[in-house]
Amino acid sequence: MSTQATEEEVEAVQEEIRRIGFRPFINPGVERKVIAVLGELNVQKADLVDHFQVMPGVARVELISDLWKLASRSYHPEGTVIDVRGVKIGARDVVVAAGPCSVESESQTIELAHQVKSAGAKLLRGGAFKPRTSPYSFQGLGEEGLRILAQAREETGLPVVTEVMDTHEVDLVCRYADVLQIGTRNMQNYALLKKVGATGHPVLLKRGLGSRLRDLLMSAEYIISEGNHQVILCERGITTFEDSTRNTTDINAVPVLKDWTHLPVMLDPSHATGNSRYVESISKAAVAAGADGLLIEVHNDPAHAMSDGPQSLTPEVFYDLMQRVRKVAEAVDRSV
Amino acid sequence: MSTQATEEEVEAVQEEIRRIGFRPFINPGVERKVIAVLGELNVQKADLVDHFQVMPGVARVELISDLWKLASRSYHPEGTVIDVRGVKIGARDVVVAAGPCSVESESQTIELAHQVKSAGAKLLRGGAFKPRTSPYSFQGLGEEGLRILAQAREETGLPVVTEVMDTHEVDLVCRYADVLQIGTRNMQNYALLKKVGATGHPVLLKRGLGSRLRDLLMSAEYIISEGNHQVILCERGITTFEDSTRNTTDINAVPVLKDWTHLPVMLDPSHATGNSRYVESISKAAVAAGADGLLIEVHNDPAHAMSDGPQSLTPEVFYDLMQRVRKVAEAVDRSV
Amino acid sequence: MSTQATEEEVEAVQEEIRRIGFRPFINPGVERKVIAVLGELNVQKADLVDHFQVMPGVARVELISDLWKLASRSYHPEGTVIDVRGVKIGARDVVVAAGPCSVESESQTIELAHQVKSAGAKLLRGGAFKPRTSPYSFQGLGEEGLRILAQAREETGLPVVTEVMDTHEVDLVCRYADVLQIGTRNMQNYALLKKVGATGHPVLLKRGLGSRLRDLLMSAEYIISEGNHQVILCERGITTFEDSTRNTTDINAVPVLKDWTHLPVMLDPSHATGNSRYVESISKAAVAAGADGLLIEVHNDPAHAMSDGPQSLTPEVFYDLMQRVRKVAEAVDRSV
Amino acid sequence: MSTQATEEEVEAVQEEIRRIGFRPFINPGVERKVIAVLGELNVQKADLVDHFQVMPGVARVELISDLWKLASRSYHPEGTVIDVRGVKIGARDVVVAAGPCSVESESQTIELAHQVKSAGAKLLRGGAFKPRTSPYSFQGLGEEGLRILAQAREETGLPVVTEVMDTHEVDLVCRYADVLQIGTRNMQNYALLKKVGATGHPVLLKRGLGSRLRDLLMSAEYIISEGNHQVILCERGITTFEDSTRNTTDINAVPVLKDWTHLPVMLDPSHATGNSRYVESISKAAVAAGADGLLIEVHNDPAHAMSDGPQSLTPEVFYDLMQRVRKVAEAVDRSV
Repeated sequence: MSTQATEEEVEAVQEEIRRIGFRPFINPGVERKVIAVLGELNVQKADLVDHFQVMPGVARVELISDLWKLASRSYHPEGTVIDVRGVKIGARDVVVAAGPCSVESESQTIELAHQVKSAGAKLLRGGAFKPRTSPYSFQGLGEEGLRILAQAREETGLPVVTEVMDTHEVDLVCRYADVLQIGTRNMQNYALLKKVGATGHPVLLKRGLGSRLRDLLMSAEYIISEGNHQVILCERGITTFEDSTRNTTDINAVPVLKDWTHLPVMLDPSHATGNSRYVESISKAAVAAGADGLLIEVHNDPAHAMSDGPQSLTPEVFYDLMQRVRKVAEAVDRSV
Repeated sequence: MSTQATEEEVEAVQEEIRRIGFRPFINPGVERKVIAVLGELNVQKADLVDHFQVMPGVARVELISDLWKLASRSYHPEGTVIDVRGVKIGARDVVVAAGPCSVESESQTIELAHQVKSAGAKLLRGGAFKPRTSPYSFQGLGEEGLRILAQAREETGLPVVTEVMDTHEVDLVCRYADVLQIGTRNMQNYALLKKVGATGHPVLLKRGLGSRLRDLLMSAEYIISEGNHQVILCERGITTFEDSTRNTTDINAVPVLKDWTHLPVMLDPSHATGNSRYVESISKAAVAAGADGLLIEVHNDPAHAMSDGPQSLTPEVFYDLMQRVRKVAEAVDRSV
Repeated sequence: MSTQATEEEVEAVQEEIRRIGFRPFINPGVERKVIAVLGELNVQKADLVDHFQVMPGVARVELISDLWKLASRSYHPEGTVIDVRGVKIGARDVVVAAGPCSVESESQTIELAHQVKSAGAKLLRGGAFKPRTSPYSFQGLGEEGLRILAQAREETGLPVVTEVMDTHEVDLVCRYADVLQIGTRNMQNYALLKKVGATGHPVLLKRGLGSRLRDLLMSAEYIISEGNHQVILCERGITTFEDSTRNTTDINAVPVLKDWTHLPVMLDPSHATGNSRYVESISKAAVAAGADGLLIEVHNDPAHAMSDGPQSLTPEVFYDLMQRVRKVAEAVDRSV
Repeated sequence: MSTQATEEEVEAVQEEIRRIGFRPFINPGVERKVIAVLGELNVQKADLVDHFQVMPGVARVELISDLWKLASRSYHPEGTVIDVRGVKIGARDVVVAAGPCSVESESQTIELAHQVKSAGAKLLRGGAFKPRTSPYSFQGLGEEGLRILAQAREETGLPVVTEVMDTHEVDLVCRYADVLQIGTRNMQNYALLKKVGATGHPVLLKRGLGSRLRDLLMSAEYIISEGNHQVILCERGITTFEDSTRNTTDINAVPVLKDWTHLPVMLDPSHATGNSRYVESISKAAVAAGADGLLIEVHNDPAHAMSDGPQSLTPEVFYDLMQRVRKVAEAVDRSV
């Protein structure tokens, strides 16, 4: 309560707490009174903060317990392992998904798929529907891109991760993809989260550029609460004042998420740095910090890539990176 | 070019510039060479930065001209005025849209509509589809909410602004709403932008929490490039390290946007502060800075609002605010 | 307490609370226990959060009362008015301090002082000691600059605001200046804060580029706790991801600070935008939001200014700005 | 130049370029003209951007070459190795500095020094002068603290790193310390930078909470340009919107700084996370990313530490951390 709260205001808040089925409990503070709200909180919990915040005499309302349930580690103490056609994400093996930013042609994609597989990647990533900042940029091949990805899976056995951008494309993408990626710009596209939550497909949920980790977990909760527990979280850099890199890799996110949630955590060093020169360094950092996987852009000709060339590695550079990432993984008792 | 670039690398970049139909032009710098790319830039311009960035010997690529065309003031020097059932946005009058965060009931909405109208609001805002951080929070009344809003318009004559969250709801919302709001979380939901761009409805595009102004303009360009020129931009606070308010109002956005684009600019002080105590102050600041309108949350009983209570004003407080905002508008040669 | 806290841990925390002279008070929460710490808090309060944070079983420690005392509005409900040679800062008049970024010559400074005075400025600002990002940039005229400022005061009657950058210069600057400015880079230079706190001079304390408002108030507390109550706070833009302006003006800071503290609040639109085109817009916004003053860079020849040319106004532009700012001040029942 | 620039404006800019001793060079752009400024840039370079920015018709001025010289890797391609009483920073060995946030007593400090040494630390860190946000927090033991640190060095052989906060303390601290630490709040305290630049002591320069990497390098340049080349850079977390950790570790800073400068780079995971639970994870990440050293807070009784308890490790936890960090170091071909 505010230091100026009257007895009537204190009483009114207690009355309201009782009215909605909780018990009030007063701490007789010296400077100000604090009223605890006791009871078994349920799903409307999120709205209660607002509810009391505006009552006269109330200075501040705080939640003591988390807003997410199904995603929290206290709900599910053991780490979740997600099985994608036999590739286990969240287990001892650090899983690397690699491939081009955009799928550009069948031959390119299949060749790249073979190359990243031989370097040690376990998943093929590639965009068919591309969310581009400019309406005039290449927007992806659409269903043709999905078909090419499925073909590459056919030939290499690598399961496919690809982005879905809109509710009306979810069914289509599900027909081809093994993991549905929700991009950073759609992290809080709730209609889309619900729709992918209603599928049985694993989901790779990328953090929004300006989103707090608690918001990321609330978005995961949207998917899980629809019945789909197979959610992989992905840190991919946030917007900050620092401008030497495209984004700022929030490496703290790795141990914080591993602490808060049972979901697997991946990191995308390509977007998190935006610069191929820094991808290896950040890949090793992510694995050392405890990430369960990496998402890396590889292109056979970065100089002619239709998107994200500057942050893409050539297959050769990627191969070398994998050797060195493997050593770091072993140093933290994991494998690649 | 990099300071270590070889003659061959410099030549290769020039060759590539010619290959794609531009003319190279070398500045013989002392420390490093700079190659200008000359020619009539077209829509693929956005991809060229990436294209050259990865060539050997290239240190940095920069665009001299803007990435947006149709939204830019140089393309359309005069300010755009958008007519919504006779209410002109972008003209001398500062237009205030007011109403509840969520539509909760018909009687509440209609009563509020009358109240905000009598205080001077020209548009009624209210949410039927609500993007909520938590899946367990109230998600809005859906079509019933739209129907109520239309009913309130019927009774008061106030045109209706309401959010559309997903492509499959666009047609539905268009049947009831006068202005389609794209919420902050969907600013880069490109499928949705294209879809509202294909309607003839005015669009209120809210800035993403972590989005730069240039990204906001690119999102506007998505809508305009589909043929819909009626776009209103809305600053609503960004995420920063400051935690005394829910968001940080980027008041600089007002003069910057007025400088860069011909589109009308509104500001939402309710979300930009998250605290009803600061709404009046920021409303006056926005008008003084040159905003074309305000978006304000008003609720007849903030303590029992189903969402955003802490930042909602009572109709009485809103009435007083409007009197004082009007004086500021007059001080900058505008009206309310 | 953590949800897994044992009875022993709960008891140990209570014991420790008693040991340091407070009373523990338990809220028997359903999910977790919350222990309130009751008693008259004293100056070590700030350290107690850390003290308990690390005890076994403790999940989180939060302060219910503010960390600043002397700067808080609850300690001193009426606004403080600071009298600088008859110019009252924090009263009805919005005080404008104007002048060149750097003092460059006597004739320039005196001419500018006359010009800004005739436009309505009440204080002369100008830098003699300049904190420059680069060691190779012009560093100011030093004592000669101070002498010139004093001379300009002699001729115009305008009191002088100028920066002091180091403890060993405080006595020197006090001999010439009326208001000591602590620059953004020194907001947490505690040795300097203590030193200016020991003088009887009014202090203009600029917010750090990456500092929260609570840190700004703690820095003010450093000055006040040394016995100097004459502190003026100054918002001058913060670092954020937005790059269209040099900094982001945190306009919310104005109402928040007026709410939290009794100290006067000024705003520096020149640094907060970094662009002379946006200075007028943000000046009007600041006054409309409730600022007690403005700090504006004016230069008779911005194109040849030795620092901050791009954000400096010519005297003519400044004159026009003042006319329009005055109208906004009157609209919020103040004067300029 | 602006798209509206007149021929006269273009000519005036060229004239001015010639006047100051450079050569103008025009790119005949289609949309706008770009004028290159050619010549051997000297130390006033930093001011030229401002100089031209304000000329009529100029749209934007950009520096093609870096603003720092002595700190840049192009000036000194090989990495600098700093020798502190035989401990080499910037060489193959990853150097760990450990110890208490504040020096509290002789026995505590000496015991801790022995403990961190036996765990593998090569430097002893500890604060005698403490920059505390609150004036009411413990401010450090001052010279008595320095004496204790020197005593601990005597007994263990560990060189001492300690903070200096003000110019008038530099001589005093130099008498006891081996490495002078410039704290985050003083990164742009230029008087202090110059003063430590005039000593022969190695300097550990911590990045400001809201400072870009280019500003960090400019601050290093201040020190080097006074003749002191022994500068160690230290990333310690930046302020962002993310609030799950005290600060956000900018791990990208490690490869970026290694790319831009020849100076050694350390990382402080204790401040960068603010939470002892996350220190090991971020320590390993830093080493994997290429950091030359770590700065870690260790306290024999974090629950009773006089500052920074929540982020301090016990000697036992630190010992275990070192074993695991060593493995990561070996995985990247380094040692600890």
